[in-house]
Amino acid sequence: MTVINILKKIKLKNALLVEGLPGVGNIGRVAVGYLVEELKAVKFAELYSKWFFPFVMLHENHKVHLLKNEFFYWKAKKTGQRDLVFLVGDCQSLTPQGHYEVAEKILDLAEGVGVKELITVGGLATGELESSEEVLGAVTDAKLIKKYERYGINFNAGEKVGYIVGATGLLLGLWKQRRKDGLCLLGQTAGFPIVTDPKAAESVLDVLTKILNVKIDMTKLEKKVKEMETFIKKVEALQKRALLEITKAAHEKTQKGEEPTRYIG
Amino acid sequence: MTVINILKKIKLKNALLVEGLPGVGNIGRVAVGYLVEELKAVKFAELYSKWFFPFVMLHENHKVHLLKNEFFYWKAKKTGQRDLVFLVGDCQSLTPQGHYEVAEKILDLAEGVGVKELITVGGLATGELESSEEVLGAVTDAKLIKKYERYGINFNAGEKVGYIVGATGLLLGLWKQRRKDGLCLLGQTAGFPIVTDPKAAESVLDVLTKILNVKIDMTKLEKKVKEMETFIKKVEALQKRALLEITKAAHEKTQKGEEPTRYIG
Amino acid sequence: MTVINILKKIKLKNALLVEGLPGVGNIGRVAVGYLVEELKAVKFAELYSKWFFPFVMLHENHKVHLLKNEFFYWKAKKTGQRDLVFLVGDCQSLTPQGHYEVAEKILDLAEGVGVKELITVGGLATGELESSEEVLGAVTDAKLIKKYERYGINFNAGEKVGYIVGATGLLLGLWKQRRKDGLCLLGQTAGFPIVTDPKAAESVLDVLTKILNVKIDMTKLEKKVKEMETFIKKVEALQKRALLEITKAAHEKTQKGEEPTRYIG
Amino acid sequence: MTVINILKKIKLKNALLVEGLPGVGNIGRVAVGYLVEELKAVKFAELYSKWFFPFVMLHENHKVHLLKNEFFYWKAKKTGQRDLVFLVGDCQSLTPQGHYEVAEKILDLAEGVGVKELITVGGLATGELESSEEVLGAVTDAKLIKKYERYGINFNAGEKVGYIVGATGLLLGLWKQRRKDGLCLLGQTAGFPIVTDPKAAESVLDVLTKILNVKIDMTKLEKKVKEMETFIKKVEALQKRALLEITKAAHEKTQKGEEPTRYIG
Repeated sequence: MTVINILKKIKLKNALLVEGLPGVGNIGRVAVGYLVEELKAVKFAELYSKWFFPFVMLHENHKVHLLKNEFFYWKAKKTGQRDLVFLVGDCQSLTPQGHYEVAEKILDLAEGVGVKELITVGGLATGELESSEEVLGAVTDAKLIKKYERYGINFNAGEKVGYIVGATGLLLGLWKQRRKDGLCLLGQTAGFPIVTDPKAAESVLDVLTKILNVKIDMTKLEKKVKEMETFIKKVEALQKRALLEITKAAHEKTQKGEEPTRYIG
Repeated sequence: MTVINILKKIKLKNALLVEGLPGVGNIGRVAVGYLVEELKAVKFAELYSKWFFPFVMLHENHKVHLLKNEFFYWKAKKTGQRDLVFLVGDCQSLTPQGHYEVAEKILDLAEGVGVKELITVGGLATGELESSEEVLGAVTDAKLIKKYERYGINFNAGEKVGYIVGATGLLLGLWKQRRKDGLCLLGQTAGFPIVTDPKAAESVLDVLTKILNVKIDMTKLEKKVKEMETFIKKVEALQKRALLEITKAAHEKTQKGEEPTRYIG
Repeated sequence: MTVINILKKIKLKNALLVEGLPGVGNIGRVAVGYLVEELKAVKFAELYSKWFFPFVMLHENHKVHLLKNEFFYWKAKKTGQRDLVFLVGDCQSLTPQGHYEVAEKILDLAEGVGVKELITVGGLATGELESSEEVLGAVTDAKLIKKYERYGINFNAGEKVGYIVGATGLLLGLWKQRRKDGLCLLGQTAGFPIVTDPKAAESVLDVLTKILNVKIDMTKLEKKVKEMETFIKKVEALQKRALLEITKAAHEKTQKGEEPTRYIG
Repeated sequence: MTVINILKKIKLKNALLVEGLPGVGNIGRVAVGYLVEELKAVKFAELYSKWFFPFVMLHENHKVHLLKNEFFYWKAKKTGQRDLVFLVGDCQSLTPQGHYEVAEKILDLAEGVGVKELITVGGLATGELESSEEVLGAVTDAKLIKKYERYGINFNAGEKVGYIVGATGLLLGLWKQRRKDGLCLLGQTAGFPIVTDPKAAESVLDVLTKILNVKIDMTKLEKKVKEMETFIKKVEALQKRALLEITKAAHEKTQKGEEPTRYIG
């Protein structure tokens, strides 16, 4: 049960999918979310899944909504631009098999509306106080380095990291299996996974807007980041709390040193 | 394997589904269970699932029954009332994906017998000694606030809580995806998840009977709550114990400081 | 993937399925396994499943075999006896959903070869040094008490225990959902789950042979129990060790107090 | 979702499948991997699965690839040799049901290209400082001992170990269910699971090349083992780290001794 609700039927030409789901420093979520708002991209599909956490969020104090991933599109306005699809959302899957199943559904939808290339956006937590503003890159095929190196991306990502987890990595890997081209952009952030880093998001946006050949107003970024951060942190805190409730249940009894119980079976 | 056994084929008109499964303070389970008994609603379906705990309960000392969820119906007796379906049960699913799969099956059945609207009933554990008797509400769509605010529901639930877990939340969220209307009623309870709170259940029943436009005798509530509580607590205790047995198995060996063992593969 | 290999096609009349899988005190496994040997019942099917542990056992120092459940049959020799199917095996499922899925497959096979009634055999760990030799019983329907009470079964099992876990309980509960009759026999044992109790097995065998109206030589029971115990304990020990290896992997790093690592995604 | 990408359609005669996936001492992975290189076997299929870890590896600092298992083939060059299929890979499944599902897919592919017999290669961690160079063996059928004992294999493996976990054991067990012949070779290694042991790999290769009747240059083994080890260790370390991140998330809160939180449902 991974369901995609199509809100509007669209057909794009040679489109590019840009993914930004919650992750390290929420760099992808924040950068791509800001791009969606600034470009006034239009929502055309929603994905929800049994692999997400089983709860609903409350908006405006009274409206419920399921955890979901959302798809937006934006049509090229002039030569040198491409039709774009954006993927943002509340969360990623809870389990490994969920990650694979949801990623395949996302790529099926993307291919169906005319996506030909993929850019995933994530973060690298360096654990250092001062992080470089350099954006790291990884690709599905060596030929793409030539295409993208002029944007100042450091393609020696492998020196700092040996793998890319979750949607940022998996979408790219599964896309490669479909014999298609893809790029991953990683912003570097000092902090821990749940600290949103607007500076790292800005570095990535800088590269991303050049690749996409779009201009956006960056002055509202910090304010927007604060707003988004509040929401993203809430989802994360809730997931942790819920996980904790589940874990605690099984352990409560032992801690109380209860008397031996009868067991049957 | 989530199976619904239809005991009686029914067809209702513009019906309302009222859900009350075990949860915080067991407020939903107790309130809706009491309503089922007082209205003498008729059981028409049972649901059991591989996502429930794999054991049977013993009734009357010798009769086994699977953990299950049960559906009852009640037909409108006069103008101003609606046909009703009630969902109560022994337990909820053990895993996130189970929650989604069982919730979808429940909504499929509901739609099939003519349900058009949904009310889920749950609880909010405030952690405060004195809890307000005010019932909190959340909706699938802002227009429903106008419809329901005259019943004294506090629709600023979001000020106290950011999410609703399990069936109470998920049924509502998935119902909204089907473009249908739904309401969640949350009683406030001081205590912990497994303490059944008859006062909070009474507050919710008060609102619920007004919405449903039915009259019931509330004098037996406290006695009934005690009876139900015994059973509900038993299921919860058994689930915890069983979870514990599973967890313990893997850890027993280390604690005994056993000698290193040969390993192969 | 729960596969049943049919070794021999059979068709029985009004047959009775007797289940004895590993569990508390291994009472069911030992009692039913002994019955299979003494009656020289014939193996006609094997079940293996992705819900069992992923390893093979080594027999006679060099032959591998998958963990499996086995079905044997025995045809009535005289009036007053019934055709019998026996279910014994190496293990039960690892997960709740596995329990349900495997139990359904077992009951499908049983119905297919002509089984009309079910007896499951398990144990109750009392935690007391001296256990009663009385066999406890539970049924799918009150009418069965009349049929079986003459065999000296205590049908107030519910006074000592509120539930029956695993195959012993679940097969009975799912069988009841198919509107069929079933009985559960529980031997009482002082000890812990992994201690095989031949005395409790003998008490159950005593009742069981009377119900089945068969005579068997009980003198070899203790010796056979010792042999079976060695094998059953090996499977259990291996499962625990394997579970432990999995659990340990995730915790090893923290214990070593390793330096912070780079994280990406 | 376990997908096999066929890169080249092949049809072999009476072929033998030789499996070497990561495991104890990585003996199978290293021995079979070396054989693939030395024989210049040709890759004809790749398998990836939702049961593997959800991340991509980075190669040459910038190229991503999914975790996968790979199939190579080699055609007999002279009388006394057989067509061969080799299975090597980055990882095994994360869960028991994954192990069974992936193993079945592998055997389906093998049967499809003409495989008639199976040899799986693994390791036994003895926990002793000095390990014997003797290769242990296990078989699907006693008749195979006669066929293989002349290669100096010790078929009393069961004296040292009672079971074989993961792909090395499970492929053999499931292959036996298909009524086909198979052999398992286990090298003995002193060390722990993640320490690659070139000496044990050499002992196994010695036996394996005799069985396969092929000659390979063994002088590069130690160097190659070092190269492979770096990669295999990286995958293992990453899997552990990722598992740890998941586990940690749920526990972080309790350790901080956070104040009680509101709970709803």
